[in-house]
Amino acid sequence: MRGALLDDTGKVLEERSFSHGLLTVKSGEFASVFENCFGDWMQAPDALCLMSGMVGSKQGWLEVPYCPCPAGFAEIAANLTWVEPGRLAIVPGLSCENDGVPDDTHLQRIPDVMRGEETQIFGALQLLGLQEALAVLPGTHSKWVQAQAGRIQSFSTFMTGEFFALLRQHSILSRSLPAGDGEFDSKAFDQGVTLALRSNSLLQTAFSTRTLSLFDRLPAEALPSYLSGLIIGEELRAQTLQANAHVVIIGSETLTQRYQRALALRDVSSQRVGSEATWAGLWAIAQTLDPSFLNQ
Amino acid sequence: MRGALLDDTGKVLEERSFSHGLLTVKSGEFASVFENCFGDWMQAPDALCLMSGMVGSKQGWLEVPYCPCPAGFAEIAANLTWVEPGRLAIVPGLSCENDGVPDDTHLQRIPDVMRGEETQIFGALQLLGLQEALAVLPGTHSKWVQAQAGRIQSFSTFMTGEFFALLRQHSILSRSLPAGDGEFDSKAFDQGVTLALRSNSLLQTAFSTRTLSLFDRLPAEALPSYLSGLIIGEELRAQTLQANAHVVIIGSETLTQRYQRALALRDVSSQRVGSEATWAGLWAIAQTLDPSFLNQ
Repeated sequence: MRGALLDDTGKVLEERSFSHGLLTVKSGEFASVFENCFGDWMQAPDALCLMSGMVGSKQGWLEVPYCPCPAGFAEIAANLTWVEPGRLAIVPGLSCENDGVPDDTHLQRIPDVMRGEETQIFGALQLLGLQEALAVLPGTHSKWVQAQAGRIQSFSTFMTGEFFALLRQHSILSRSLPAGDGEFDSKAFDQGVTLALRSNSLLQTAFSTRTLSLFDRLPAEALPSYLSGLIIGEELRAQTLQANAHVVIIGSETLTQRYQRALALRDVSSQRVGSEATWAGLWAIAQTLDPSFLNQ
Repeated sequence: MRGALLDDTGKVLEERSFSHGLLTVKSGEFASVFENCFGDWMQAPDALCLMSGMVGSKQGWLEVPYCPCPAGFAEIAANLTWVEPGRLAIVPGLSCENDGVPDDTHLQRIPDVMRGEETQIFGALQLLGLQEALAVLPGTHSKWVQAQAGRIQSFSTFMTGEFFALLRQHSILSRSLPAGDGEFDSKAFDQGVTLALRSNSLLQTAFSTRTLSLFDRLPAEALPSYLSGLIIGEELRAQTLQANAHVVIIGSETLTQRYQRALALRDVSSQRVGSEATWAGLWAIAQTLDPSFLNQ
């Protein structure tokens, strides 16, 4: 759980982060947790608070319906759910429908969802002065997002970070891997990315983590970086990218650096945006609201 | 752990199986466990016992080096490791070297390994009267094997069964899935296979298990079969198969039926061989041994 206090020009005055996510808060206790964490900020008479992410999920403060794509500031603003009218609102997540199985009645379209990433994307577009972009938000569930004319047209989820954690902690590969992740090994990471880009499936390449260790071709301390490369490389292999594609990578420094490195191995240029994207996104959404409604 | 008693024509007289694998046996206790399980069979004066699988691994009775591919009966027979000369031997597993990263000094070739599957393949070739085949042995670690002139030329491991178990038990998808696997839902399985064959990566398709459930497009009881289809379909998508490819599927009835069904959705013909392949394989290996060495 992260929060930031912005002034009336959108400048970040203060940031706070808490190690517990909002999903650890019990139902009925959201208001008091919010008061404890950010109550002092809300004492200003004209304070407005916008919240995005899992706070709007079924396990969150208030379940907020997904807003269907394509969606821009207008759709987001029209679909805010107000916890306290004019003062405290939750930004809706987005849903979209991707291609499924053409000749299947039920699965012609496959739904996808995001909560929180929409705000980061809008913020990144604002920060970069872009109306159109291909963006990736790496993480437990990476999102690849197509934005046009300032609106999110479509997106797709890749369970990249979760697959890494599953293989790292629960699979046979964990027997070859050292206990800690140790230092990032850029060469082993590049080897993993390169193999993945030349292969057909992680189901196959993943096993090489074990055999390269069995045959002493890679030292144990290189294996976490190699496996990370295999899985991020798999995510990049699966993207249909145009020849001149440029990717906006939004997220933490560690992850965005790895993705930039991996994209370069696919000959794709990219730029990185950090966590400030969230605050810029919430600020941009706030700018679209009707002032007469706020702080009634 | 499974065993079979064969007569001197190779006919199976009796089969025994034990729920504990050989990997649960403590070092130093293999001989007594073997005696308890199969000692009565070994009382015949001319008894010969051949063992294949994890019994030859580092955690097994005796570590037996991998025999490099290509390998046929001659190479296997020459590389048996005798626990008791002429009476009790372990069949070596196989290793091979597959294409890796061409311009990488260390990873130009990527090793792969199998233990036990080599015996099943030799047995299946014998049972079917084939010298050449493309075979798959589905399981925790599926093996795709190319055999020519009665020898295993190369193979590749896919962590299919393990990925299913990881996603089923430890991932966010487990929240959508029912506790038990319930009845096999052939329609949901086919939907999963078909989507996987049209997609680029399981990293992406796996998340549909969650969203199709979130949006009530698939009932919870169909999801295990759907996920099984996604993962088996991913394994088949990753195969480079010739137009007239025919696949020999070796393994349990449940799994080989699913693979046959999935291969049909890729327009690939196949035939199935059951667990009798192991006994046929061990029998065929026994036939290649020098009788003067046995039962000295």
